[in-house]
Amino acid sequence: MKPTISYEDGAVVMIDQRKLPTKEVYNRYKDYLGIYRAIKTMVIRGAPAIGVAAAMGYALAAGDIMETDYDKFKKRLDQRKQKLASARPTAVNLFWALERMSRKTEALKHLPVEEIKLKLWEEAIEVDREDYDMCRKIGMHGGKLLNDGDYVLTHCNAGGLATAGYGTALGVIRGAIEQNKRIHVYADETRPFLQGARLTAWELHNDNIPVTLICDNMAGYMMSEDRITSIVVGSDRIASNGDVANKIGTMSVAILARHFGIPFYVAAPTSTIDMNIDSGKQIPIEERDTKEITTIARSTIAPEGICVCNPAFDVTPNELVSAIITEKGVARAPYRESLAAFFRTD
Amino acid sequence: MKPTISYEDGAVVMIDQRKLPTKEVYNRYKDYLGIYRAIKTMVIRGAPAIGVAAAMGYALAAGDIMETDYDKFKKRLDQRKQKLASARPTAVNLFWALERMSRKTEALKHLPVEEIKLKLWEEAIEVDREDYDMCRKIGMHGGKLLNDGDYVLTHCNAGGLATAGYGTALGVIRGAIEQNKRIHVYADETRPFLQGARLTAWELHNDNIPVTLICDNMAGYMMSEDRITSIVVGSDRIASNGDVANKIGTMSVAILARHFGIPFYVAAPTSTIDMNIDSGKQIPIEERDTKEITTIARSTIAPEGICVCNPAFDVTPNELVSAIITEKGVARAPYRESLAAFFRTD
Repeated sequence: MKPTISYEDGAVVMIDQRKLPTKEVYNRYKDYLGIYRAIKTMVIRGAPAIGVAAAMGYALAAGDIMETDYDKFKKRLDQRKQKLASARPTAVNLFWALERMSRKTEALKHLPVEEIKLKLWEEAIEVDREDYDMCRKIGMHGGKLLNDGDYVLTHCNAGGLATAGYGTALGVIRGAIEQNKRIHVYADETRPFLQGARLTAWELHNDNIPVTLICDNMAGYMMSEDRITSIVVGSDRIASNGDVANKIGTMSVAILARHFGIPFYVAAPTSTIDMNIDSGKQIPIEERDTKEITTIARSTIAPEGICVCNPAFDVTPNELVSAIITEKGVARAPYRESLAAFFRTD
Repeated sequence: MKPTISYEDGAVVMIDQRKLPTKEVYNRYKDYLGIYRAIKTMVIRGAPAIGVAAAMGYALAAGDIMETDYDKFKKRLDQRKQKLASARPTAVNLFWALERMSRKTEALKHLPVEEIKLKLWEEAIEVDREDYDMCRKIGMHGGKLLNDGDYVLTHCNAGGLATAGYGTALGVIRGAIEQNKRIHVYADETRPFLQGARLTAWELHNDNIPVTLICDNMAGYMMSEDRITSIVVGSDRIASNGDVANKIGTMSVAILARHFGIPFYVAAPTSTIDMNIDSGKQIPIEERDTKEITTIARSTIAPEGICVCNPAFDVTPNELVSAIITEKGVARAPYRESLAAFFRTD
């Protein structure tokens, strides 16, 4: 498999995740609006991967600005940054990556604009490389929390496809396997976008990691039958108190895990932690197009004109989270202290 | 809308529920094997409707037996009854209806076989009529448990389409509306077969009952946002201790309801209560074809060769059930006593 996202000869190349698992198609983007649309329409998704795409989109946005005067250049670039930031509201990595690129631009203001453009590409590629390394570290830390013979439920896709590669939640599974533990994964199909059925199942199957696909509403039954021993999910944003925004359905899985006494782990790079917000109540929940629910593969599955809700995320309260696994180590409750400690050691 | 199932000129006519909501197709069956296949492939589904179909299938099975000697006739009919009983393993109404028809046959053994055949049709039509009346009574009793302005979540389709008409869980909603209460329904789409999206949404929309469709994994989020005030579901089999077998995902909804302090009601005719089994542990859980999960409307949504589990039901433990609503009244814990009382008053 080629990387989820990469830079090739002035273009950003990504695998079109909407076409998986039946077709492996790579899209090439040469302007930042293409990246904006790719994020918005979920050609690329997953908080860390969105961060990488945003960084590369920023570099593309800088690339074709004609202004050579720094202030005019920066003003135009800021407008384009706002456009990129509006692609998805929940993933904090999107804003994190854009802020990082913006700070880099300012740090380089003494250089000619053409040179800044080149250095922004270097920075975007560095964001990508760091993401991969972070996931490896998440896998190393998180792998230790899993036991040989574990049956691990995951929701959505927090895998290689959601990151520069390796994955966060699936990185923990890969880490455990690298530690010579035998792991069997249960993948929630994750309606409506079916990231579990289409992406997690595809990615693990490709890597010969044993995986069983179930519908979202079967997870509780599997827990009740002792067929799940651990749960690992990713996150789109973590509040400073440890509340976790992630794909819709995650909170329900956490409540079921608590009911059945199964550990519930969240795996995410520290860039996902938003120390500016006090609790999950401040995280905006994206509502997506109702067609995602009423049609599947262009077939209509609901009556014409029906009323539909399509919240894309939910917030799992910190008290349901057994641990948060980051590249800097494993945080446990009380999260306000353990998460803050990651940033103090910077 | 024509009835879910009816008898017309020597044939059994049912709406093909696999084709809803996009096509309204009525199938005609003139032999019992057609009915067997219709139950097995879910042309008709829902425990009470399966009971009616089985009774009509039994009458059809009797109709074309050539033997005129009662013992030979009954022997052949018993074989066909076994075939019909094997169509679905979980719905107790299937066995209940077949036993009722079989007892009726025995009670008529003094009559000529041709006359028995006619009387079996009368009995099958009586099963259908009684089912409708039972649902009306369930609606009357259950409607009192709902409040004006309630937001009621339901899972799967326990509606007119799952019964002779009116419905059990949706009968409770119709009952509340007849009692002049304003009710808004949230319908879980109910993967993999999408009974909620295709049938519940269609049926309520047709009846101008306000309904919002959500994915199964959104129910917990809606509860956390105080957007659901009551839950009503149907059942395929209820054990004598009040454990409730119903569509996969029901138990998870019950656990979420308990977590958020929302009442969880089960609506079913007393024919659904199996006093022969002590607890839900004795209820066999049907595993259905994995293609129900990996393909939707003939489109493949999961990788080739992926491992899949597809349990069709789960069992909600009695302690999570706020009340069981039947045509004979409302049972509450301890269920071993309250359910037995329904049968003592017979």
